[in-house]
Amino acid sequence: MSLLGIDLGGTKLTLALFTESGELVHKETVLLDKTGGEATGRFIREKTNNMMKIAREKADPVQSIGVSVPGISRKQSGTVWAPNIPGWQDYPLLEELRLVSDGVPVQIEGDRSCYVLGERWQGKARNCDHFIFLAIGTGIGAGIMINGQVLDGVNGSAGSIGWMTMHPSWMEEYGKHGFFECWASGEGMIRLTKSKLNDHPGYKGPLREKEASALTTRVLFEAAEQEDSLAKDIIQTCISLWGMAIANLVSLFDPAMIVLGGGVFGPAARYLPDIQQQALKWGQPQSMPKTEITLSALGSDAGVYGAGFLALSSLQPKQSGN
Amino acid sequence: MSLLGIDLGGTKLTLALFTESGELVHKETVLLDKTGGEATGRFIREKTNNMMKIAREKADPVQSIGVSVPGISRKQSGTVWAPNIPGWQDYPLLEELRLVSDGVPVQIEGDRSCYVLGERWQGKARNCDHFIFLAIGTGIGAGIMINGQVLDGVNGSAGSIGWMTMHPSWMEEYGKHGFFECWASGEGMIRLTKSKLNDHPGYKGPLREKEASALTTRVLFEAAEQEDSLAKDIIQTCISLWGMAIANLVSLFDPAMIVLGGGVFGPAARYLPDIQQQALKWGQPQSMPKTEITLSALGSDAGVYGAGFLALSSLQPKQSGN
Repeated sequence: MSLLGIDLGGTKLTLALFTESGELVHKETVLLDKTGGEATGRFIREKTNNMMKIAREKADPVQSIGVSVPGISRKQSGTVWAPNIPGWQDYPLLEELRLVSDGVPVQIEGDRSCYVLGERWQGKARNCDHFIFLAIGTGIGAGIMINGQVLDGVNGSAGSIGWMTMHPSWMEEYGKHGFFECWASGEGMIRLTKSKLNDHPGYKGPLREKEASALTTRVLFEAAEQEDSLAKDIIQTCISLWGMAIANLVSLFDPAMIVLGGGVFGPAARYLPDIQQQALKWGQPQSMPKTEITLSALGSDAGVYGAGFLALSSLQPKQSGN
Repeated sequence: MSLLGIDLGGTKLTLALFTESGELVHKETVLLDKTGGEATGRFIREKTNNMMKIAREKADPVQSIGVSVPGISRKQSGTVWAPNIPGWQDYPLLEELRLVSDGVPVQIEGDRSCYVLGERWQGKARNCDHFIFLAIGTGIGAGIMINGQVLDGVNGSAGSIGWMTMHPSWMEEYGKHGFFECWASGEGMIRLTKSKLNDHPGYKGPLREKEASALTTRVLFEAAEQEDSLAKDIIQTCISLWGMAIANLVSLFDPAMIVLGGGVFGPAARYLPDIQQQALKWGQPQSMPKTEITLSALGSDAGVYGAGFLALSSLQPKQSGN
């Protein structure tokens, strides 16, 4: 039996075939263009169709499809709200995928849910019913599992931790991204770097060279590794914010485990001990020392694994975590 | 049928008899002395015994007992961790209450759980399965209800929002109380007032008069009402922190409702519109405007109502919210 997991991101699309036991058999990742709207829908259909064909050629046709979307899946209408894809305020993705799904079940969930489902299925949180996946990539979001169930919230927006404020001073920018995402996501780290470069006109290091066009988190992490003081200072600010955010999650949810994932972890993984130290400083003193803080085992594939698990759970509706 | 609810606070003890339908028939509130240990246990037994007698005299004997404690109830051992009662690190409250309970069921829960159960049984959140009770009194805590179930957490410490940090600068004091409780609880507001008085040596207003001995939140709220600028400034700081905390709860949990209770709401109730405005500024923009923010209908009785509901739920084990 073949399961198709589809992870739609803001900038790329990953499709993978899984076995029922969670083995990844085939994976493709392609960049999305920025067109959005129906063009993106058409592109997803094409790629889906192609994966269905590959599975048939392997004599193991797809039995079920799961899709992770960067936003909110509205189950009743089958539509998707994905703020980073132009024209996807209420996009009829379910209806469109049914055109190419050969009648197999299709289930769509928000990426925060999929991260947590993927990590529980094949990652660090197997057999763990109470944990949080904190995804720090281009943006920031948290998938929250309580008693083996994903927390959706009343409006489907639970886990919107990018909006968590950890400083009382207000800036207009926070109205667009939220405080935490504004400074401590991948894009936020670049924003923070530009702001610090502005504050230090005399600085002449590697971040200045790239300032005009090629400033990336990679450049930033490399500069810090080469002991550039401004880069180290910026990363220290982020370590502090990441640690505070983990502490706040633990004080509020008291989970067994926090799993760190997304593109930034990645290179930020080496700072895990410093992040833990910050979290221990701020968190509730009974629960914080007992909470495991760990790196995702699936890295940037957590979403597509979660989509694969979604596909499986449509076939086994009583599977825990569905 | 008579239900006995017992709300043990840090400074007082409230006992109440309820009917099965949640009508409060008889209530007594008594101050605790500061002795702690077995003396507090003996005092609770005496008062419990007395309420059992009152119920018998009304020809409606107590059928079940529920107890709210200011800390964590360890179900397996029947013991209680209550940091503000001396000697109650692991106090055998269940065993002791059984000496006077005439063989009826006794159930003990932490106060955060009881607030939320009380408010759902007889307060603002009837029929609401997704809401948070934010209790701001001497300390700060949150009771969290998800899908009709109270969130306990792995170590029983979920909802410890007093430990939520909303400022990256560290102070030793935060290790004792947590950031939010340190400044925005009842005791925190006094701490903040003393700190502001220190920063403004030229200030001669009503807060200065009471500084040495009689500084209370009541004095602070009254001074603000009389347009004292320092008092208004202090309350503005708290409004900002309360609004930020509500925003963070909504961004993370996406509940239908936030209920504000505890001794501070009370006098802070008049600032609800300002608090809402702060929350709207910081919270996740899809869910925040849809979340009802309201004042507890039960005020300082939320805990004892919750204890009454606990008593009821021992008799009706399938009651939702148990």
